[in-house]
Amino acid sequence: MPSLDQFFKAAITVDNVIFGFDDDDLKVLLIQRGEEPYINKWALPGYFVTEDEDLDTAAERVLAELTGLTNVYLEQVKAFGAAKRHPLGRVITIAYYSLIKINAFEVKPASIAEKVMWHSISKLDELAFDHNEILEACFARLKRRVRGRPVGFELLPRKFTLTQLQHLYEAILETELDKRNFRKKIISMNLLIDLNEMQEGVAHRPAKLYKFDREKYEEFVAKGFSFEI
Amino acid sequence: MPSLDQFFKAAITVDNVIFGFDDDDLKVLLIQRGEEPYINKWALPGYFVTEDEDLDTAAERVLAELTGLTNVYLEQVKAFGAAKRHPLGRVITIAYYSLIKINAFEVKPASIAEKVMWHSISKLDELAFDHNEILEACFARLKRRVRGRPVGFELLPRKFTLTQLQHLYEAILETELDKRNFRKKIISMNLLIDLNEMQEGVAHRPAKLYKFDREKYEEFVAKGFSFEI
Repeated sequence: MPSLDQFFKAAITVDNVIFGFDDDDLKVLLIQRGEEPYINKWALPGYFVTEDEDLDTAAERVLAELTGLTNVYLEQVKAFGAAKRHPLGRVITIAYYSLIKINAFEVKPASIAEKVMWHSISKLDELAFDHNEILEACFARLKRRVRGRPVGFELLPRKFTLTQLQHLYEAILETELDKRNFRKKIISMNLLIDLNEMQEGVAHRPAKLYKFDREKYEEFVAKGFSFEI
Repeated sequence: MPSLDQFFKAAITVDNVIFGFDDDDLKVLLIQRGEEPYINKWALPGYFVTEDEDLDTAAERVLAELTGLTNVYLEQVKAFGAAKRHPLGRVITIAYYSLIKINAFEVKPASIAEKVMWHSISKLDELAFDHNEILEACFARLKRRVRGRPVGFELLPRKFTLTQLQHLYEAILETELDKRNFRKKIISMNLLIDLNEMQEGVAHRPAKLYKFDREKYEEFVAKGFSFEI
């Protein structure tokens, strides 16, 4: 039997794509790297998986170490393994993604992260490694996901207006939606509860506030209903 | 800066889950391993990724080397990286899957494959490594996929009967479907072309033959329509 040692020279990393929504803007959480390669560049919060660690565990640990984020539900999206994607050798990375409410979490840089900050998806520069490509793949997953189920639940504050919900969909789908049609479809799905409350402290005319009906939402997801907007 | 050498000790493999459909039975293509570990055990056709090889390329090469299958469209499903999943060290595997027409391809074992054979999904023994788990994840993907688009196109012969189509769905969804409802839904989707031909050489009463309307099918997929059965 030929020796298999030659194959045991690769490294495994995890990279986390954390999406949030704020001020009508879809955002992603990035760190500024304090370590070579790509020192000082903005990057996805990611790092090496240790020898005795499962992938999901590593993704959670790395995210917590670099950004302070804990109790975030991470979902594996894809492995990225182009032969030359990392300057230090063969490194395969497993991308995870999550949708969170920006204001519900505090972030704080540590370990190899000099800074940690939310960046608008629409105004991103070149990131470290192949992280633009990884982000793109996770954004594509989010676009598909938004058709399969309402994602507002994870991204919006607990109470929100129909305009906020529409802006979220517009940011994800990167398109403008017709207000009347959007409202008609959303209302017909029976997923929202009218709170009989109005916005407070806004400069414009206050709008009605809604929340998601969690029970209906879970039923909706379990049945695999599609959510055509 | 601390040395990162400690992280470069892992190996990467690819494993391919090839689904086919034959005689009303959903099948998966397995090899009998001719190499330790798990020598003589049935396993998914998979092997190590070489140093300078992209993942997708590796999946195609390994599949071709072990089974003779070429020109198969492989889709990445998931990375499996439990810390102790491989007896020889840290090995992370990237699972790919494909749907093919069994009779349109010839298979032939080579390299570390002693045998290559189609196995019924419903009658599988314990496979090598964590391959039952990998197969399970790909089967789950197939179940989800069947709701998002018609998969018969890839798995059925070019001409098929409505009964064959129904049996395919029953095999994938692991449930019995009501014949009348199934036909009503399928016909209403306008995806089938009635060939005005009957089956030949069958013991039972010959049934009408259909084929998929490729144009309608592609439109259907592009629009992201759901396919509730």
